[in-house]
Amino acid sequence: MAEAGAGAEGAEGAQGGGGAGAGGAPPYFHKERLKYSPEEEARLERQHFWRIIDAFRFYRVHVEEQVKRAECQFRSLPQHHQNLLPDVLSNLSRISQCAHHNQELLQAIVHNSLHMFENIEYGEREDPRKARPSTTFDMDKLKSTIKQFVRDWSEVGRAERDSCYQPIIQEIQRLFPSDQYDVSKVSVLVPGAGLGRLAWEIARLGYICQGNEWSFFMLFSSNFVLNRCEQVNSFTVYPWIHQFSNNKKSSDQTRPIRFPDVNPQSLPLDADFSMVAGDFVEVYSEPESWDCVATCFFIDTAHNVIEYVETIWKILKPGGVWINLGPLLYHFENMANELSVELSYEDIRTAIVNFGFHIEVEKESVQTTYTENDRSMLRYVYDCVFFVVRKPVDLYFNGQEDDQQQNSPPAAKSPRREGTDGLT
Amino acid sequence: MAEAGAGAEGAEGAQGGGGAGAGGAPPYFHKERLKYSPEEEARLERQHFWRIIDAFRFYRVHVEEQVKRAECQFRSLPQHHQNLLPDVLSNLSRISQCAHHNQELLQAIVHNSLHMFENIEYGEREDPRKARPSTTFDMDKLKSTIKQFVRDWSEVGRAERDSCYQPIIQEIQRLFPSDQYDVSKVSVLVPGAGLGRLAWEIARLGYICQGNEWSFFMLFSSNFVLNRCEQVNSFTVYPWIHQFSNNKKSSDQTRPIRFPDVNPQSLPLDADFSMVAGDFVEVYSEPESWDCVATCFFIDTAHNVIEYVETIWKILKPGGVWINLGPLLYHFENMANELSVELSYEDIRTAIVNFGFHIEVEKESVQTTYTENDRSMLRYVYDCVFFVVRKPVDLYFNGQEDDQQQNSPPAAKSPRREGTDGLT
Repeated sequence: MAEAGAGAEGAEGAQGGGGAGAGGAPPYFHKERLKYSPEEEARLERQHFWRIIDAFRFYRVHVEEQVKRAECQFRSLPQHHQNLLPDVLSNLSRISQCAHHNQELLQAIVHNSLHMFENIEYGEREDPRKARPSTTFDMDKLKSTIKQFVRDWSEVGRAERDSCYQPIIQEIQRLFPSDQYDVSKVSVLVPGAGLGRLAWEIARLGYICQGNEWSFFMLFSSNFVLNRCEQVNSFTVYPWIHQFSNNKKSSDQTRPIRFPDVNPQSLPLDADFSMVAGDFVEVYSEPESWDCVATCFFIDTAHNVIEYVETIWKILKPGGVWINLGPLLYHFENMANELSVELSYEDIRTAIVNFGFHIEVEKESVQTTYTENDRSMLRYVYDCVFFVVRKPVDLYFNGQEDDQQQNSPPAAKSPRREGTDGLT
Repeated sequence: MAEAGAGAEGAEGAQGGGGAGAGGAPPYFHKERLKYSPEEEARLERQHFWRIIDAFRFYRVHVEEQVKRAECQFRSLPQHHQNLLPDVLSNLSRISQCAHHNQELLQAIVHNSLHMFENIEYGEREDPRKARPSTTFDMDKLKSTIKQFVRDWSEVGRAERDSCYQPIIQEIQRLFPSDQYDVSKVSVLVPGAGLGRLAWEIARLGYICQGNEWSFFMLFSSNFVLNRCEQVNSFTVYPWIHQFSNNKKSSDQTRPIRFPDVNPQSLPLDADFSMVAGDFVEVYSEPESWDCVATCFFIDTAHNVIEYVETIWKILKPGGVWINLGPLLYHFENMANELSVELSYEDIRTAIVNFGFHIEVEKESVQTTYTENDRSMLRYVYDCVFFVVRKPVDLYFNGQEDDQQQNSPPAAKSPRREGTDGLT
C-alpha cells in the first residue's frame, strides 16, 4: 500500500498561490493567502505547525485546570450538600486519570508527527522559549479531534459511519462498478478527509483514493492511526471526559473507546491510497484530473463554498462525478475577520446547476450524526442533503449547456477532451 | 381569571434574602445575592431591568448589522460567483424586512412591560444618556426568547409541547384526579415557566397554578402574550431569520410563525393562575406550601442544582410530588465567575433519594426538542429524564426514611403536619 504520508502535492501552506478560483480576488474579508512572500509564508507555516504541536502537548494541563475548577466549585458547596453527593470527587479523580491517559496518546501522536511529511521539514520551534498555553479555541479543536477516533476508527462509530460513508461508497460502486471498470484506474478524491476512514474504505475497494486535509490536528492524528496502529483495538481513548453536561451516569463521562476497529495496514498490497496536506482550493489546481470527488461534511468548511464548487468543477474529468453528503454548518460564521458566505442548499444547488453540473441523484433528508456521544442527553442530528452531480462529458454538444454556462467561470469554457470519460 | 402579572411574592431581586438553602453560604463563586444593601440591590435591579428593555429596543440595529455584513461579504465575492447566486441579495433584503417586523413586536412587548409589575415600579432609566448597544450575550438571549413564542404559543410548536408538557400534565391528572380531589384546592408551582404555556395549561384544568420565572426577557414576553393577545393567530413573528447556517431553502429562514394558537384569555373564570417574577430559591421560602412542583427544562438553570432540590423538598407539603422532565445542559457551565456544579443525573438522583424523596415514576429516555426549527439541517434532540418523586407524608413513621435523612438539611427535620396531605 501507499504510505499515507503527505504526497508530492505539497504540504499545507507550502504550496504556492495561484490555486483555482482566484479570478478577480475579492477586495477584503478574504483569506489572505497570497499576501506574503514565500519566505514569510514558510515562517507562518512553521509557526502554525508548532502551535498545533504545542496544543497536543498542553492538553492535560488544560483538562487538569477544568477538573481543579470543578473540584473547587464542588468544595464551595455547603457541607450538607457535599454530603448528599458521595461520588462527585471520585468521578473527578477518574476524569483526571483519563486525561493522563489521553495525554499519553497525544504524545505518541506528536512523536510521530515531527517528521511525517515527505516533502517538508518543520525544524525546531523558532521561539526557543517554553511553549505558551494554548487557547480555548485550539483546545476545543483538539477535543473534537479526539472524538474523531470514535467516528472513524472505533466499533462504537460503526452506525455513524454507516449513515455517513455508506451512501457515498454505494454510489461510487454503482457509478464505477468493478465489472465494467478497471477500478484501479478510477481516481477518487476525498477533500476534508479527517482521520481518513472514508478514503481508506474507498481505497480498500480497489479505487485510487486520495484524502486531502487542511487541519494539522487531523493530519497528525490520521498519520498516527494510518501508519502506527496495526493491532485491532490496541489503543484506548476517553473522548467524553470533556463533557460535563448532559450525562446520565457519571461513568458515561469516563467510558473508554478502543481503536482501531480494523487494522489500517490491512489494505490490499496493490491499493493506491494517499493523504495530502493543504488547502483544497490551493492544492488541487490541475484541471480534469479526477473521476470522482467525494465530500462528506466538507463543503461548509469553506469561506466561500462556491470556490469549492468551482474547484471541483475544474478538477473533475469530463463525465466525472461529485458525490456530497453533509449539512451546512458554516465553520467561519460569526468569526471576526474571516470571510464567510452562508448559502442555503437552494442557493448552492442553483450555482451547481449554473456551473453546468447535471444532478443525477438528490436526497434532501439523510439523517446522520457527527462524532456522536450516544449516551448524551443532548444529541445533534443532521438532516443532510445528499447528491450526485456529473460534469457533462462534452459541454459543447448540448446547446442548453452552453446557455447555462454564461455565468460560469472561464475554467468551464476551456477546451476539454471529447467523447471519452477515460475511465475504462 | 387571575391577572397574570407579578403576584404578591415580589418581583425579581426585590425579594429580601434568606431564601432556602442558604445554610453555610459558599465562600466564593456564588451568586452574590446577599452582598448588597437593599438600596444598592434595588439600584442594580433597576439597572438590570433597563438593560433588558434596551436589548429589546436594540434588536433591529443588531440584525441590520448582521445583514449588512452578510451583504458586504457577498459583494466581496468574485463577480462571476455573485452571478451564479441570483437570489442571495433579495433574501437578505427579506431578512431585513422580517427584522423590522420583529422589532415592532418587541416594541409592543416593551410598551406593555414598563409598568407590568403590581408591586414594583422601575421608574425611568437612571442614566439619561442614549441606550448603549447591547451585548452579543443579550442579543442571543433575546433571539432565544423570540423562539419561545413558537414553543409555547404556536400551532407549529404543538408537537414539541406534546413531548415536553403532556407527560407532566398527564401525571398531574393521574396523581390528582378530579373525581377524587377538589382540584381547585390543589396547588401546582411551575418554576422556570418561560412564556407560561405549561402553567397556563395546568390552570386551565382547574388546578391552582403559579408560574415562576427569573428572566426579564421571558417575563416581558409572557406578560405580553398572556395579557395582551386575545385573538388566535393575530400576531406574526419571524423566529428563524437569525439562523444563516443549515437552511435548505432560503425561504425557510424567513417563514412566518403565527401566534397565539389559543386565546390566552380563555381560561375559565374561576381559574387561579399567576406568574411570579424572581429567583426560585429566593422567592419560595415558605415551607410545606405546594401540593406539586412541576419542572420542565428547569433544573439545569441552577448554579447548584442541589439548592433547587432542597427548595423543592422544603416547599412541598408532606405527601406532595415533584414532577420533572428535562436534560442537564447546565446554563452556567464555563461561565467565568459563576458557580456551576455539573452533576450527572445519577448524582442528582442520589441526592434526591438522600433527601428522603420516594421515586414513584422514572423514565430515563424521553425524547424531546426545545424551540426546534423543524426545517433546519441541524436539530437538537434531548434524551430527557422524566421522574415523579414524592415527599413522604410522614417522615417519622418509617424507620428507613429516618436513616436516609442523615445527610439531609435541617429543613427536612423540622416538624411537619402528620396524617394528612391536606389535598381533599
